[in-house]
Amino acid sequence: MKSVGIRDVAKLAGVSVTTVSHVLNETPHTRVAEETRNRVREAAQSLGYGPNRVAQALRTRRSGLVGLLSEEIATTPHAGRIILGAQEAARAHGLTLVIVSAERGSSAEAHQADVQALIDRQVDAILYATMYHRKISLPANLHEIPAVLIDATDDDGPFPSVVPDEVGGAVAAVRHLVEAGHRRIAFLNNNDDVPATHGRLAGYRQVLDEHGIAYDEKLVAESISEPAEAYELAKEILARSEPTALFCYNDRMAMGAYRAARELGLKIPEDLSVVGFDNQEIIAANLFPGLTTVALPHYEMGAWALETVLKILAEGNDRSPAPVGPVVLPCPLVLRDSVAPPRP
Amino acid sequence: MKSVGIRDVAKLAGVSVTTVSHVLNETPHTRVAEETRNRVREAAQSLGYGPNRVAQALRTRRSGLVGLLSEEIATTPHAGRIILGAQEAARAHGLTLVIVSAERGSSAEAHQADVQALIDRQVDAILYATMYHRKISLPANLHEIPAVLIDATDDDGPFPSVVPDEVGGAVAAVRHLVEAGHRRIAFLNNNDDVPATHGRLAGYRQVLDEHGIAYDEKLVAESISEPAEAYELAKEILARSEPTALFCYNDRMAMGAYRAARELGLKIPEDLSVVGFDNQEIIAANLFPGLTTVALPHYEMGAWALETVLKILAEGNDRSPAPVGPVVLPCPLVLRDSVAPPRP
Repeated sequence: MKSVGIRDVAKLAGVSVTTVSHVLNETPHTRVAEETRNRVREAAQSLGYGPNRVAQALRTRRSGLVGLLSEEIATTPHAGRIILGAQEAARAHGLTLVIVSAERGSSAEAHQADVQALIDRQVDAILYATMYHRKISLPANLHEIPAVLIDATDDDGPFPSVVPDEVGGAVAAVRHLVEAGHRRIAFLNNNDDVPATHGRLAGYRQVLDEHGIAYDEKLVAESISEPAEAYELAKEILARSEPTALFCYNDRMAMGAYRAARELGLKIPEDLSVVGFDNQEIIAANLFPGLTTVALPHYEMGAWALETVLKILAEGNDRSPAPVGPVVLPCPLVLRDSVAPPRP
Repeated sequence: MKSVGIRDVAKLAGVSVTTVSHVLNETPHTRVAEETRNRVREAAQSLGYGPNRVAQALRTRRSGLVGLLSEEIATTPHAGRIILGAQEAARAHGLTLVIVSAERGSSAEAHQADVQALIDRQVDAILYATMYHRKISLPANLHEIPAVLIDATDDDGPFPSVVPDEVGGAVAAVRHLVEAGHRRIAFLNNNDDVPATHGRLAGYRQVLDEHGIAYDEKLVAESISEPAEAYELAKEILARSEPTALFCYNDRMAMGAYRAARELGLKIPEDLSVVGFDNQEIIAANLFPGLTTVALPHYEMGAWALETVLKILAEGNDRSPAPVGPVVLPCPLVLRDSVAPPRP
């Protein structure tokens, strides 16, 4: 798709670029005949070229404003870390980050108006953040402006994107358990079809392979990734398969597993080691004993996205460059007190 | 303080209002002598009148943009609810909410630049939110624009504000325990000098008074309002004073109390009833048994603030009206499974 420019509008209407600018921006104190005005507006409309694009093309200085469109600000603790990362990077470059909380519902259409609101405010670029790692379809107007995806990938869009290393995080977690001496390691997985589900299982299997431990499907189970469901699942798998360690898809599932272990009379970490994922502080730091887990790089993804749109802008692009595949940021292990060697 | 208007600048510079507008807005294609330009700029500067104010005064339409300056977006789950309440109210009125996450550190100076960034983007009004209820000092430039405070009060500013009913929330919690039959009700309070600390204690005492229960200082203790500290405090007070019920300053303290009760062999709610405060979902809904608690009206405060600035704007004010004292919104009880009658 070739980008439509102000010159195209001027050519089609048979007027100068300046006249197009005056008409579409409704610049005061300029005299343009009504007939000419109509011709310019029709030309712009037929080419899909709006007044904001004109203003943008003609501005000598950028607005210094970067928009962050974020879903689920109200319902997840992850949004805040992305915002903070993007914002501190923006401040370091003298830019202002304005955040729009995306309307509830995740359809591309629902977000079209949110993107438009940012474009209308003449932001230089948009960071488009989802709150868990997944593939999304994007509003069409996101193509009008440099944009970067955070925690998401898009099949065919020309957008740089950044996602967490789900496989690497699981490898770090399970390797930590193996290095403590565990061989019977159960995995409580999520049952959603999202990259984290597949990536964390792949990491789990990779470590077993590395250490010559056979994959035992009786040690792996999945459910909704919440405490109540994980509690039921953990009770079952702990009673049935007697693992010495438990890798949980997330910290909320680990919270349910803690309760199951307690009810079965298993002390953590003496009788059962547990590792979570997400480093959701309010759980991981406040469970007793503190939960060893894997951190998601939300702050770092926010900062990376901001730096990346700056690079695009510095190169003088007014749209995103060709896709290069998602950039994967590491998920580091956070050590607390829930892992010990198995009983001899 | 009288508001400085464009007429004041025109009068001081000895030029027309239109000339002031052209000079300060740098309107293209207007001829004003350099000497006149300088005189206008000096007049505007001496009166503290910036170009954005001119633009704002001359605009026939408002920008349709409302700014929300929020602190601690990254570190508290409360921010999201305020954002959602303000945003859904804004959408209902066809407005766009842009959020700026305030710089870390809570000084008025630190927030001056954040407020200015919003003013420079020509927002119609600013919602200024703190993440726990307290008195604050505000950046001076907040006086330049209609503004409403959320979860905060200001001693001398002319700002409408909205805060939670801390006393009423505690009354609801403790009354619920009394109505279940409890008379020995302990209170684990926070030790910060904030309105919630004093208000929740006042509510606790009010219910005791209502029911002729003597205030027993051995049943009241305070600490940092986090699980680890509350665990220690609860262990002590449960062993020493044998209450049948425990009212906790917040859900995080209740989380610590749950652990203490477990270690002392006390079952919740059979041996000990517990009520929290905040309705921090990830804790309250996922503790076992589910924690009966008191909800903070963050969503409602966000919505109230948006509706209130709209009223100010509808009345044609370009600054906030005279203060009327904070509006207090109710904190309703959220029933789960942590309260039962005391053992006979």
